[in-house]
Amino acid sequence: MGNKNISMAVIRRLPKYYRYLADLLAKDIQRISSKELSEIIGFTASQIRQDLNNFGGFGQQGYGYNVEALHREIAKILGLDKKYKAILVGSGNLGQALTNYSGFKNAGFDIMAVFDANPRMIGLKIRDYEIMDSDLIESFVSENNVEIAILCIPKEGAQQVADRLVKSGIKGIWNFAPVDLDVPSSVIVESVNLTESLFTLSYLMKDGEEA
Amino acid sequence: MGNKNISMAVIRRLPKYYRYLADLLAKDIQRISSKELSEIIGFTASQIRQDLNNFGGFGQQGYGYNVEALHREIAKILGLDKKYKAILVGSGNLGQALTNYSGFKNAGFDIMAVFDANPRMIGLKIRDYEIMDSDLIESFVSENNVEIAILCIPKEGAQQVADRLVKSGIKGIWNFAPVDLDVPSSVIVESVNLTESLFTLSYLMKDGEEA
Repeated sequence: MGNKNISMAVIRRLPKYYRYLADLLAKDIQRISSKELSEIIGFTASQIRQDLNNFGGFGQQGYGYNVEALHREIAKILGLDKKYKAILVGSGNLGQALTNYSGFKNAGFDIMAVFDANPRMIGLKIRDYEIMDSDLIESFVSENNVEIAILCIPKEGAQQVADRLVKSGIKGIWNFAPVDLDVPSSVIVESVNLTESLFTLSYLMKDGEEA
Repeated sequence: MGNKNISMAVIRRLPKYYRYLADLLAKDIQRISSKELSEIIGFTASQIRQDLNNFGGFGQQGYGYNVEALHREIAKILGLDKKYKAILVGSGNLGQALTNYSGFKNAGFDIMAVFDANPRMIGLKIRDYEIMDSDLIESFVSENNVEIAILCIPKEGAQQVADRLVKSGIKGIWNFAPVDLDVPSSVIVESVNLTESLFTLSYLMKDGEEA
């Protein structure tokens, strides 16, 4: 079954539950009530119960939640119980930072290759990756059944690269280019727009001053 | 006047309007109707009119919006008509990528100094910045009236550094550490959690497969 009726607001809270539950596990805490969870995570207890009920409800009246079971269940809901094959396109500063971040691999996201269109970058090494010519993206994606592409390129070329990735059978794009990509609905795009985030900070700071 | 009654959802759409209007200006397009804007930006025309009405409404029946005026007005609303003094804490891969990104400076965010706690990093150069000892954060922030700190450090030390920044008079924190910072309500925190974004992508891809 899919969870098409779950709102994006709930979905965006799930990774946060996952993170807090991992912290509890690391502290060897075995069970927790929605009230205690509320105190550390900042959502209301009723919000927490409602959120988790969406996925079948793992709590037990008078006992609370089994931390390990809940953590495992949310991992499954988030699709973190499987491995993903990924490539990274664009070996600039941000691309290099993401390539170097080991946390993704630990979470099951395996960057298989790094691509760049700039001839001066091709053949250079980031970590264990020799940067490949972006002309090879299509063949690499289809031959290796790559599912996720991490897009760290300027906005100008982003839609064109996205089109090529879609044709090659990519299933998801993690997009850092500051542009809204136009892809078929079967392909998932999750965008991180750093400038928009910074502008939100700026707005909120200005609003605070005026209040 | 403040805009305390404006919802976060509207605020988060403003940078997107700003970006699309900049694109229109670059194409020398002088005016646009909410319907045309709707076609390129993807929100409904009525959503657009409603959003922009929140800030006084810049449209004119039968004429549409003056692109340049609207762009300038949204810049003002977002607080982009002023300059911000910033520092960056944590000169790892992501910190280096953000330091090297010239787009922030163009938008009025001036990184004045880069700090790190690691003695091996102190004194090294990123771009024109000589990495400074993070023991000097407090004095630098208060002496230079720094308003924004960009936090690119692991979650372990993040709250402690945030506390020190708050004491030194920081007004806003752009937080890349995967932790929810506890600060007084007068200090604005805008967080970018890359892992949570990646997990959302993973969830949506899994959900698509099951549907």
